[in-house]
Amino acid sequence: MNTSAASPSVLALSGGIGGAKLALGLTQAMPPESLLIVGNTGDDFEHLGLHVSPDLDTLMYTLSGKADPEKGWGLASESWAFMQALEALGGETWFQLGDGDLATHVERTQRLRAGEHLTEIISDFCRRLGIASRIVPVSDDPVRTIVETPDGDLAFQHYFVRERCQSTVSGFRFQGADAAQPSPFFLEALKAPSLQAVVICPSNPFLSIDPILAVRGVREALQTCRAPVIAVSPLVGGDAVKGPTAKNLRELGHPVSATAVANYYRDFLKGFVVDTRDKATVPEIEKLGLTVEVADTLMTDLESKAALARIVLNFSQRCER
Amino acid sequence: MNTSAASPSVLALSGGIGGAKLALGLTQAMPPESLLIVGNTGDDFEHLGLHVSPDLDTLMYTLSGKADPEKGWGLASESWAFMQALEALGGETWFQLGDGDLATHVERTQRLRAGEHLTEIISDFCRRLGIASRIVPVSDDPVRTIVETPDGDLAFQHYFVRERCQSTVSGFRFQGADAAQPSPFFLEALKAPSLQAVVICPSNPFLSIDPILAVRGVREALQTCRAPVIAVSPLVGGDAVKGPTAKNLRELGHPVSATAVANYYRDFLKGFVVDTRDKATVPEIEKLGLTVEVADTLMTDLESKAALARIVLNFSQRCER
Repeated sequence: MNTSAASPSVLALSGGIGGAKLALGLTQAMPPESLLIVGNTGDDFEHLGLHVSPDLDTLMYTLSGKADPEKGWGLASESWAFMQALEALGGETWFQLGDGDLATHVERTQRLRAGEHLTEIISDFCRRLGIASRIVPVSDDPVRTIVETPDGDLAFQHYFVRERCQSTVSGFRFQGADAAQPSPFFLEALKAPSLQAVVICPSNPFLSIDPILAVRGVREALQTCRAPVIAVSPLVGGDAVKGPTAKNLRELGHPVSATAVANYYRDFLKGFVVDTRDKATVPEIEKLGLTVEVADTLMTDLESKAALARIVLNFSQRCER
Repeated sequence: MNTSAASPSVLALSGGIGGAKLALGLTQAMPPESLLIVGNTGDDFEHLGLHVSPDLDTLMYTLSGKADPEKGWGLASESWAFMQALEALGGETWFQLGDGDLATHVERTQRLRAGEHLTEIISDFCRRLGIASRIVPVSDDPVRTIVETPDGDLAFQHYFVRERCQSTVSGFRFQGADAAQPSPFFLEALKAPSLQAVVICPSNPFLSIDPILAVRGVREALQTCRAPVIAVSPLVGGDAVKGPTAKNLRELGHPVSATAVANYYRDFLKGFVVDTRDKATVPEIEKLGLTVEVADTLMTDLESKAALARIVLNFSQRCER
């Protein structure tokens, strides 16, 4: 076990693409070995007999510099011979798995079947990929996001990838979350005297952060955490950079605004970072009792990721006072 | 079910590379839909959590024109991003799985886990790959070749691929063979009035053909088959074209000669095809009571494969008389 990661100074909760951008920024703005990233596993699913962990993999690929910079998910310079051959054999092709990416799923699946825990496997992958920070799944027990629609339930990836979030959502639930044991690294970090900040990355609150919060004991541990919990708004100019955050807010009866996201986290949140394009929301968010920071949150390159991370870290010290 | 394949005129028993060459030749020398190929599954194994069937796949790839013409196994123009990524993650890389080839293993494995039989899966793959002949595994039940050595047992692929047949072999056994149910297509074909010949392809007698013969009832069915059973020698100039046939003959106390192979099959064999470079063995083989044909068996291109197949088919008619 990496002893630095056992007493992290910063804990980041993250989904995939957007969250991974800030996580990468954090590795540039602080000693990376003092960063613990807790990844969402609500998106995990079994596909073609393989255990796929989209958010953990996006985090690993992003932090190791292997991610596809255009798509945000998958590997850069990926090839697709597997998918082409699978199509010729009549296999399911709605979920794209690149040739290199497939190694992650095949190796993870066989190690899981051999009895290893997801935490150990991801930890080993990170070490081999040269990632200095620790990435842990929120739990080694299965947590599966179910999308509730007027026409019935959808498995998360069927909603997210297969039908590109077209269904109207009436709710989300997280199968297994109340029985899942949170990662001990996560709970220990939340109690560690070394902890200086908990950062909720700019991820979809319902699909990326809620599955983490739903795991038994996590919300309570955040509420009682001594270090300030701050969140970065996933909205830029009142809309999501990518993904269905705005659509989900609307469908679930929330205003589509940074304020609504801040309000959603208010039971454990100390500070909130809104994008410069949403600075009109600052007074509303302050009225919720939160300290607010305004910053450019778009993170288009490594420097802007690191810059936002530095702002977030400085802001967290301000929230502590 | 393909009704032509249900009443085949020719039944071929085959291992991988060498056998697949003659099987391809047969598809050129006769109506391919009247050819039933029974493939060895003794080489099958679970690797990286995937069910790999090397001989069946070599047959499929060869008959669909997708095989790598240099190596004889795997796909032509294959890419290897999966293996490279697997190596970076610390996975097992001693058994090469190309990116396109992997689709076969992943799709087969998940269909097997879903309860489909290997026969159905291979049949569906063949249909999708445009193969007119029927390829069936000798059995849907597991048959696993175990290599006995003075230092203990080795799983087949550990012997064959990982240590490149370096161990001295004291024997082979075929785990599961005596309990395995032979493919009904195989047994029905052996009894079918339409059957004109059974061809034992030029495959390793111990590693490719014996696992087929070991399946319950197969040897007896060959012994009582009305159609002539003929074999093509896997030796050319007293040596194997590829693989450990000569080494295995020597280790198991047989002379390294076409005669020894013919003798090995003598309880059910009517005719034997020796290579022109081994024609000195003809009198010995005739003394075993077999009809003998001499031909160039090297099969370096499609025309020579078809030419040998035509000789084999004509010869089988001669053996019938």
